[in-house]
Amino acid sequence: MSPAKMAATREVTGPWDKVYEHIDRSFPAHVARFQEFVRQKSVSPLNVGMDDCARLVSGYFKDLGCQRVDIVDTPLYPVVYGEYDGGNPHTWLVYLMYDTQPVEGEKWTSPPFDAKIVEKKGLGKVLIGRGAINSKGPMTAFLNAMKSIREVTGKIPVNLLLIAEGEEEMGSRSLPGFVEKYMPRLKKADTVFMPLPAMDERGLTKVFVGVKGLAYLELECSGALWGRGPTDHDIHSSSKTIVDSPVWRMIKALSTMVSEDGNRILIDGFYDEVLPPGGKDLRLLDALAKTFHPDQMKIEIGDVDQFIGGTGDMRALLERYLYQTTLNIDGIWGGYIYPGSKTVLPHKVECKIDIRLVPNQSGEKQIERVRQHLAKHGYSDIAVKKLHTYPWAKADPDSPIAQAHVAALESFGYQTEVWPHAPGTGPWYLFTDPPLSLPCVIGGLGVGARAHAPDEYFVIEGEPGVSGFAECEKAFVRTVYEYLRLVGNQK
Amino acid sequence: MSPAKMAATREVTGPWDKVYEHIDRSFPAHVARFQEFVRQKSVSPLNVGMDDCARLVSGYFKDLGCQRVDIVDTPLYPVVYGEYDGGNPHTWLVYLMYDTQPVEGEKWTSPPFDAKIVEKKGLGKVLIGRGAINSKGPMTAFLNAMKSIREVTGKIPVNLLLIAEGEEEMGSRSLPGFVEKYMPRLKKADTVFMPLPAMDERGLTKVFVGVKGLAYLELECSGALWGRGPTDHDIHSSSKTIVDSPVWRMIKALSTMVSEDGNRILIDGFYDEVLPPGGKDLRLLDALAKTFHPDQMKIEIGDVDQFIGGTGDMRALLERYLYQTTLNIDGIWGGYIYPGSKTVLPHKVECKIDIRLVPNQSGEKQIERVRQHLAKHGYSDIAVKKLHTYPWAKADPDSPIAQAHVAALESFGYQTEVWPHAPGTGPWYLFTDPPLSLPCVIGGLGVGARAHAPDEYFVIEGEPGVSGFAECEKAFVRTVYEYLRLVGNQK
Repeated sequence: MSPAKMAATREVTGPWDKVYEHIDRSFPAHVARFQEFVRQKSVSPLNVGMDDCARLVSGYFKDLGCQRVDIVDTPLYPVVYGEYDGGNPHTWLVYLMYDTQPVEGEKWTSPPFDAKIVEKKGLGKVLIGRGAINSKGPMTAFLNAMKSIREVTGKIPVNLLLIAEGEEEMGSRSLPGFVEKYMPRLKKADTVFMPLPAMDERGLTKVFVGVKGLAYLELECSGALWGRGPTDHDIHSSSKTIVDSPVWRMIKALSTMVSEDGNRILIDGFYDEVLPPGGKDLRLLDALAKTFHPDQMKIEIGDVDQFIGGTGDMRALLERYLYQTTLNIDGIWGGYIYPGSKTVLPHKVECKIDIRLVPNQSGEKQIERVRQHLAKHGYSDIAVKKLHTYPWAKADPDSPIAQAHVAALESFGYQTEVWPHAPGTGPWYLFTDPPLSLPCVIGGLGVGARAHAPDEYFVIEGEPGVSGFAECEKAFVRTVYEYLRLVGNQK
Repeated sequence: MSPAKMAATREVTGPWDKVYEHIDRSFPAHVARFQEFVRQKSVSPLNVGMDDCARLVSGYFKDLGCQRVDIVDTPLYPVVYGEYDGGNPHTWLVYLMYDTQPVEGEKWTSPPFDAKIVEKKGLGKVLIGRGAINSKGPMTAFLNAMKSIREVTGKIPVNLLLIAEGEEEMGSRSLPGFVEKYMPRLKKADTVFMPLPAMDERGLTKVFVGVKGLAYLELECSGALWGRGPTDHDIHSSSKTIVDSPVWRMIKALSTMVSEDGNRILIDGFYDEVLPPGGKDLRLLDALAKTFHPDQMKIEIGDVDQFIGGTGDMRALLERYLYQTTLNIDGIWGGYIYPGSKTVLPHKVECKIDIRLVPNQSGEKQIERVRQHLAKHGYSDIAVKKLHTYPWAKADPDSPIAQAHVAALESFGYQTEVWPHAPGTGPWYLFTDPPLSLPCVIGGLGVGARAHAPDEYFVIEGEPGVSGFAECEKAFVRTVYEYLRLVGNQK
């Protein structure tokens, strides 16, 4: 048994027991649905399979028992909306996403859309596929869990408003419009839940009550915009003696933005709104510093040997991880990028940059600062194109949904960390900010990793001490019952 | 008639007249062979079609009348060697190349391997295709020309040693081995000729008696080599707060190599061996400064509006163009380089760099200086991989072959510039350096451009004043006769 696995401290029997048995009996069918979902591509940045996947999700919602299922058109990809009304006093808004990142340029040991189940050392049987952990596995588990409750007990004891968007990986561009349009219906919700386990092999699981924000932009440096260098296409590089290079220009411009080590951002005012941790965050951070294991994190992130600043001061590392903003180059490309040699002077170079936003930063303001920085250093010809921004979001770590979820996870004997916010990003502000101002939690049981990376996986059948797909479903079931125990089954 | 078109000053009739008539009669068949050659892909950097193209070339050599044709195996792609022995006192070594650059990432208005003939404004009918000017058009024209002489007069009055290599675009890696192996045969040559017209729409044509050298290298900055940052694959960018970025490292490292404007190389000793022009070069340079038209060059290079240092001082511009070395980034790539947003912290970034070598620079030395520069600035983990180097080469501008070729070109009424060396590169040192130490010239009639770029073309039928494919062939014919007029038809 893993060190983090504790004795269960709460009721060991309850209405969930028969649901758990049902989940165990239904295991092959439940896993098959997960595989079906992964095999249906839904790569939003490249517009692959989006409509087909939306239809598949609407079928899942109907199968769950939703009385209302809408495939809601948006300027880009549909939002699938489902309502399950059990005539209950309490209503959960459940945020789901059906889109995934691309796989282009990644090397997978098992094809990313085969959803094969393979043995992974130290973990057990895992499903390998794009979206396995982010987020088709957790979504399927949640829907299986709720359906199991209905099948065993006749009805789900909380009403559900299910929102599955197809643009999470593109900045949820259409979600604000959807939320506005459906506001009269969404106002029925008491709380928000997102099924997304963040658990390690030791059995320690993370629960998040907030997210960082994100600003995503592209820079273009080109002869066409600059008025120097090749203006239309890459030219023979023998001209470099007398023709300027947009690539060198981009490198010089980028170089002004960060310190020698690449880690301190030198853009004026970039850190101005960054707030140090305060309020309830301080309590959570102190607790985290005791359980947080950087070695484990190295495994989860995947093949990182060294952290900036080292691991001597755990609290400092955590503070840096959660409360620092970033200026990250996600990709850079220009000129001849294929094997062998081609002698060209490129006419254009582009890069993608993401900025992680922490409280109290604004994405628009940070992008404007990038623009001003370029102008200040004489690079106003370099085009700055905003792809999207997400504000950060924070919710109360002591809300009923947060407490209920932690209780549910711990009932399985797993140690739980409550994180003040995730280092990642999601469109939570739509639910945690006014007018909805709902409490929220992100979590679950289940081990998965390598989101946005090759060989993304989710554990199906874990070795002893490693939570599998069935336990993932059971924890969602238990969260419902723990929630009702806390808030009562009345309004 | 274009301003550069002059009255022909030499004999207007001769043995070439009947050959010219034959060329005019054979025009459709001659153009068809050019199209066939372009349609046979031979992209050496990507290993596409190389063996098939070598076989096609060997057929052309046999068809010309070569008594000996060898497809010579090398470590990479075959050299096709042909000998035509007419029992003549003089022997030309003719350097040809049958490989081309890739087309990946380029936007063509006509498919690069269709070899379509289209109307191009201000020029006439042009063949569009990869290799059109560099160098399948000129090579086909040369072979057609020699064959026409044989068909009309019974034999070609110079012996030919034809060398067609398949690795010119990869640094002619196997050519030194071939030259060594065939040295006893190659020693029969008096002179070297490379058919490669460099003519503009005004009818001004360039002839080269040398080439710059080239060093081609790749840099790799990665977490695996550095020991920091992601070591194996791109990871989720939310980790940027605590994980270093190889991309930022590469940008910082590259930024140390050049001045703010990207044009002065800051690597210690980089310019140490650069020689100012001297000897016969000074005379040629003075002449060039009078005829060189930067506006024309802008058209040839393709869509360049501004030259470094401007065009106020033509001689200074030319000196910079011909006698300066370069450090050019041919391509850079790392992370997510596809449409849309993907939030990753890349584990690796790579770039390709070419260095143009002028007299008296050495490629190996310059690459070593790049390595030392990186080490000096703390970047010794950045890998420097040599792809290939070419030494520069220079020959006498007053040699019989150079004089004969200029006379041939001028016999058609076109103004000719003799360049001390080309801004581009070729494996000429193998022939101009000991033990062969042969005089050489590179040239021809005919208008083509956009080598290494999309919509590469060669004029087939020019508008008035624009040389076409038939005139290209005729000028090669005339070069043979002008050469014999100068050296006599005896040893």
